[in-house]
This record gives sequence, C-alpha cells and structure tokens, in this order.
Amino acid sequence: MEKINTRTLSGFIELLPPQQAVFDEAKSIIEESYLNAGYVKIETPAVERLEILLAKSGGEMDKQIFRIAKEDTEQALRFDLTVPFARYVAQHYGALTFPFKRYQIDKSWRGERAQKGRYRELYQADIDVVAEDELNILYDADVIAAVAAAMAKLAKRFGFGGFKFKISNRKVWEGLLASLGFADDVKRAVLALVDDKFKIEAAEFDTRLRKICGNDDAYRAIDALLKCEYIKKIGISAPDALHSCLALHISTPLMKEGIDEIETVMGALGETAAAENVEVDFAIIRGHDYYTGIVFEIFLDDMPGIGAVGSGGRYANLCGSYIDKNIIGVGGSIGLSRLMFVLFEDKAVEAGKPALDVLVLPMGSAHFKAALEVANRISAFARASAIYEDRKFKKLMEYADKMGAKYVVIIGDDEAAGGKLTLKNMTDGSQITDRAETIIANLKKN
Amino acid sequence: MEKINTRTLSGFIELLPPQQAVFDEAKSIIEESYLNAGYVKIETPAVERLEILLAKSGGEMDKQIFRIAKEDTEQALRFDLTVPFARYVAQHYGALTFPFKRYQIDKSWRGERAQKGRYRELYQADIDVVAEDELNILYDADVIAAVAAAMAKLAKRFGFGGFKFKISNRKVWEGLLASLGFADDVKRAVLALVDDKFKIEAAEFDTRLRKICGNDDAYRAIDALLKCEYIKKIGISAPDALHSCLALHISTPLMKEGIDEIETVMGALGETAAAENVEVDFAIIRGHDYYTGIVFEIFLDDMPGIGAVGSGGRYANLCGSYIDKNIIGVGGSIGLSRLMFVLFEDKAVEAGKPALDVLVLPMGSAHFKAALEVANRISAFARASAIYEDRKFKKLMEYADKMGAKYVVIIGDDEAAGGKLTLKNMTDGSQITDRAETIIANLKKN
Repeated sequence: MEKINTRTLSGFIELLPPQQAVFDEAKSIIEESYLNAGYVKIETPAVERLEILLAKSGGEMDKQIFRIAKEDTEQALRFDLTVPFARYVAQHYGALTFPFKRYQIDKSWRGERAQKGRYRELYQADIDVVAEDELNILYDADVIAAVAAAMAKLAKRFGFGGFKFKISNRKVWEGLLASLGFADDVKRAVLALVDDKFKIEAAEFDTRLRKICGNDDAYRAIDALLKCEYIKKIGISAPDALHSCLALHISTPLMKEGIDEIETVMGALGETAAAENVEVDFAIIRGHDYYTGIVFEIFLDDMPGIGAVGSGGRYANLCGSYIDKNIIGVGGSIGLSRLMFVLFEDKAVEAGKPALDVLVLPMGSAHFKAALEVANRISAFARASAIYEDRKFKKLMEYADKMGAKYVVIIGDDEAAGGKLTLKNMTDGSQITDRAETIIANLKKN
Repeated sequence: MEKINTRTLSGFIELLPPQQAVFDEAKSIIEESYLNAGYVKIETPAVERLEILLAKSGGEMDKQIFRIAKEDTEQALRFDLTVPFARYVAQHYGALTFPFKRYQIDKSWRGERAQKGRYRELYQADIDVVAEDELNILYDADVIAAVAAAMAKLAKRFGFGGFKFKISNRKVWEGLLASLGFADDVKRAVLALVDDKFKIEAAEFDTRLRKICGNDDAYRAIDALLKCEYIKKIGISAPDALHSCLALHISTPLMKEGIDEIETVMGALGETAAAENVEVDFAIIRGHDYYTGIVFEIFLDDMPGIGAVGSGGRYANLCGSYIDKNIIGVGGSIGLSRLMFVLFEDKAVEAGKPALDVLVLPMGSAHFKAALEVANRISAFARASAIYEDRKFKKLMEYADKMGAKYVVIIGDDEAAGGKLTLKNMTDGSQITDRAETIIANLKKN
C-alpha cells in the first residue's frame, strides 16, 4: 500500500521532545517576565471572522491569510495577535478595567514563502497596554522595560549575547515629511526605503534616497535625521546632541513632540534594568500603518542577519472599526519562533535531555505491577516512569540513559522478597538497597 | 460608520482574565501530572495535510473538518491530537526511543453544532505510549494512573467531587458478537446502541436491544454482559464474580483474553492512588474504530449529564497509513475545555482576581518615572505594575483593588524627597514608610 506523505507542510516547524523542552523553557521565561511586569494573560480563538482580520490591514494581509472553507460566515486563521486583541477589547469593553495590561503568547498563521527566520505557523509573545482617550507616554517605557526584562533573561539562559532595542518615533518622520511638502506617494516611498535600510548597501541607499527626494534640501534633512542614529546612548549629553542635530535642519511642532517623547522614554528607561539595551535610531519605521508614535525593533548583536527578533510601538484608535470608543495603546512583541528556531538551526542552543528524575526497572514481568505502584508513588513528588519490558538489564539501562533519568529504581526477586528497592544514582553510579519506604522517602528529600 | 460584529464565532469560547487564570491553572495541574508520570511534551502544527487527517476517520470527520483554502496542497485544521501524533511518530520514527511516552495539551477544531459541553475550538489534554510490535498491558494501567492522578488534583483544586473511570474492553465485545454469529451491520447496530446507553431510558434500551438481537439467547448474553456493570469495585471477589457472570453465558478465547486484560489492569491500578476511581463497565464502547482493546471513559459523580469528560484506550497499527511499522499504543485524554467551561457555566468555580503582588502608585506625574523604576525593580522577583495616571488617591486605590494587588507602594512628594516609599498592605490596611531599599528588600522576603 502506498504510504501518505508525513512531512509537515512547508513553513510549519515541529520539534523533537528535547528541543521542545528548550522551546518551552523560553516560552516560560517570557511568560514569567510578562506576569512579573503586571500583564495578565488572555487567549483568543485561532479563528476569527474574515472582516475582523481585514478591517485594517487591507491588501497585503489578504494574500497571506489562511481562509477557512466552512459554512456561510467568512472566517480565517489570525495572522497576528494584535487584531484579535483589538476585537477582544471592543467585545469585552464593559468588563475590562483600564489601563488594561495583557499578554498573549500564541501562534499565528501567515502564507509567507518559507525561508530562514520566516514561518507559516509562528509563535509571538505579545504585551499591550490600552486605555480610553489617554495613555501616558510612560506606558511606552513600561512596555519596553517588560520586553527587555524577558529578552535579558533569554539572553542569559540561551547565551545569544547582547541585544538592542532601537527606538524611533513616527511623529518625527510625519513632522519632517510634512514640512518637506512631499506628496503622499513620495512620503510612502521615503518610508519604505528607510524601512529597508538594513538590507541595502549604504551607497545604493544614498542614491535611491536622493532620487526620491528630488531636491538637495530634502535629502540633507532626511540624511541628517538618519545620521542621528549615532546618538546611541542615553545620558546627560544625548538630548542636547539630538536637538543640535535636528536644529541644523527643519523642525516642526510634531517633530518636537516626537523628540520630547523619545527623551522621556529614554530617560525613564535609563533608570531601569533596560538602560544598557536601548538606543535611538531613526531608521526604524515599522511598516504597519497603525503605529502613530514611539516605535521600536529588537536586534541581536551577534546575529544582525536574521533581522528584528521583536518590535512594537504606540497606536491610536485601535478598535475604531469595532466600537465607538477611542482606545489608545502601546505594545511590544518577541518573535519567539524566529528567535528560537534560528538559534536551533545555528546550533547556538544545545537541546537538553528529556528531564526524568526516576525510571523504575522491574527485573522480569513478575515485578511489572510493583513497578507501576512504585512509579505512581514517586510521581506524587517527582518525574517518574516505569518500563514494562522483559529485556536484559543492559538494554534497560540504555533506555534509562536515553530518557535522561537521574536515578533508576530496580525491583528484582531479592528486592521483592524483602520489601526492598535498589536505588542507583545515574550520575556517579553509586547504588544502595534499602526498605522501599526509606528509598522513596530519600528520593522525596532530594 | 457601521461597526463590525465583534462576537467570537459560535462554538469558540474566550475568557476574561480572571477566568483565564483559572483555566490555565487547570492546564498547569494536568501538565505537571503528566510530566511527573514520565510523559514528555510535543507540539504538532495546527494545520495538517488533508489526506493525513482523513486517512482513518473517513466520512464522519470529513463533514466536521475546518478546511483551509490555500494554494494547491489540500490542508485543514486538526480535529484531534491522536491523528497528528500518529503522523509525528511515523515521521520521526528513527529519532524516537520506544516505548515513547508523550503528552500534548492543545486545541483542536471541529465543526460541531454548538451546545453545552461541545465546542468548535476545544482543548484536550492527551497522553499516549507507543512502541513497536509489542506493548505490555501494564501500559494501559500506566496511562489510566497518570490521567487519574491529574483528575484527582483537578477535583481537589476545583471541588467538583468524585469521578469514575469506567473501564471496558473491545475484545470482550468482539468475542461475544462473533460467537453470536451476527453479521457486521447487526454488530455495528448493537455497539451503537450500547454506546448510547447513558442517554436512553432503561425500558426503551431493552426494547431496542431485543429487536436488534432478534433471538432471546443473543439478547440474554448481551444483557448479562451489561449487567456485569454492577461489579464496580476491584478486590478479591471481583475477578471471581466477573467470571461467574460470564460463565453463565457464551465464552470465547477473545473474550477470555479481554477479561484477563481487565483483571490485570484493575489489579495493577488497585495498588495505585487511582484505586478508588476505577470500575468495570461493559457499556463503554468508544465510537472510534481505531480502538482494539481496553477502553475507558471518565465521568463526574455530580455531573453525569455532561457526559464523559475524558476517555482513552488501546489501538493497534496506529501509523499503518503512513509507515511500514507496526506501532501499537494506548492513550488517554481529558476534555479540558468541556470540563472547565461547564464548571464555569455552572459557577462551580469562582474566578479568582488577577494575581498582582504590588501596584506602585505615584502621587502625580512628577513621580511617574520613579514609579517605573521601583516597579521594574520589584518585577525582578514578584508581580509588580505601576500606574501612570494623575487621578485622585481614591480612584487609584480602586484600581489597585480591581487588580487584586496585595500591596501598594506609594510615591508622593515626601517619599521622593527622603528617598523613601510608603508600603500599604491591602489585606489588613496597615502601612509603613521607610527607605526604598528597605521596603523593596522586605517585599522580596515575603
């Protein structure tokens, strides 16, 4: 009989248990960081009405979406966690307390062409704070500090080195481009080019920017803003340097507002554990239309090639398509799949053994029942399993080794006759035989 | 502007944060139980090739499936966790160590008509052990013991009272029906009727069974097997009683084998913590074709009306459609969504407050930055959040109360001037003002 193709679909990743355990550890680290920063968990359905998903994103997402063919209601898999969150806030508006800080660490689905760092099923770890009508700029710092705390723990655990939050503000760009008198299509062309800056060689970027700008004054103004990226560090001199840099060129009230926001956010972050991991870089744009203020992306110092491993920013009127309330928010996200799968591919993370504390080995089928009983008792306080197989001792020990068992408990005829168990320490090879109660009590103490 | 309908799709449930926290606690309890019983986690993609999903289930599932309209490869959302597991074992056969014990607690999607206890997006908590060619009957007990341990912890935490694993064996039914000489359609009619026994009144059931059987001998044999359900408890007398009951009627080698397996499993479970929660009941059939031996369902004593909240059993040749290996397995599952959503609907579980340890309250915007810094420091060891709003103290305290904060930390002009903080205990109302370092160190100790 011909067998069915069992390969997972292109762009869908699944892991063997040892790697899965590492992935889940990363997920837990992020979850604990978010909880500790006061964000609470929500979980939205994987499937949403199509009109919800396409309300804001328009054409680009329409092509990437996984539509579901089921009955009359047009529906599809979510492509991110932000749109379902907006829908959630609108639907449960009356039941939520604002400012509402939530996290969701979950899968989304996008019909992207599979390539390194891009997946069709991907985990993201999102936090957002939303409120009605007003949301202080300090919440932007709050979000960045929470995401940075999670990133710092991940970096420590998985040894991927330093990381940087590159922070910018859409208001600065909006102000600058408006004051340059650019038409909408020129504005979009400039922003699209800057958004791609990391992928383009410097000279080529320069040529294209000059061409789009048309005149030298505009080119120089934009170039100056981008050169401000050298102002990496916050500190006493940074705001002055920033102002000096900008004062050379065009300035508008919106630009001023944007710069002030950056100063406030950077100043506040300077007092937190995130201080070393934030810098200003006006080359950060963030493609999504819904961002209206502070935006940021996260890069790994040692792996710039994989692009941003996280991002976020502030948006206005998030729920405008769903409810007559002015909901403002700021959010941040770690691209968990991109980060971990790339680490796995680069072998930067060694998958650990599956964690089993105790494997119970009955010496022959007469002791299978006793093995179940003993394993069941140990399972009340530790990770314990029994094997019910009539194999040679050596084979059983090989299984114990593959399972990563720290101890094995042996039940043979002698042990059974005396109500005893033999406990073998798999690390140092030592073993003792003692009353079952004593062995189990000692395991519990460890 | 007309607003988009934000209601989640019929059959899709989402929770407010306090209920979500309870749901996740249940999920964690099960996960810890499974890990402690030596099962390791895997996670398969939500989307599978259509031919994988429909290889075994045939017509019934074809109607319920959520197909995805995307490019050329026919694909759909999984409708359970067993089929993807079979595909996973076939795909990774060479990389797995057998017996392979895995768990997956995850969502599946079914196009069922929405009703109480039935959802289109549902969480199940599955464990399975698989091996090649042989798998000792003790693994059936292993699975039941692990699922029972999880159920016992859930029952204790959520106060839903007693529960029973009703255990049966398909071999007993196969043996009996074969010896009665029934044609396939009559066999199926008998099994379908027995499978529905819980939903049908006794007299009505009796009438229908007589009619299907056609002759009195067959009716009496089946009735006797079902009457064996009174042998609830394991113990010295049970095997004898079981044999006496069956000896009155027809007996075949396959029936004998099935009875022996039940005795072994019940005998082994009698020595574990699950002893009080297992009983034999031949009315359990389990609809899925793939079961070939021991089968079981889990019922709540106080909520029989919601049907089984879990189930499982043994199957042969699980991966036959995908690989030329004889993979045998036994598995069990808790219907997490059914269990918890029904508990929520019946208000049997009070949703807790969101758990926040500390809310930092700055008295005016001059102290927002300090509030972020203090909250960020406390977040290193506890759940802490700051609020950045110029509101009256009373309003801020209401927010703290709604967030469920155990403590609030207050930063006003006096505190800021003296490098101090005020710590208020929300439970007893007591408060102290002290050096910031001292306050934070004390919070860390708690």
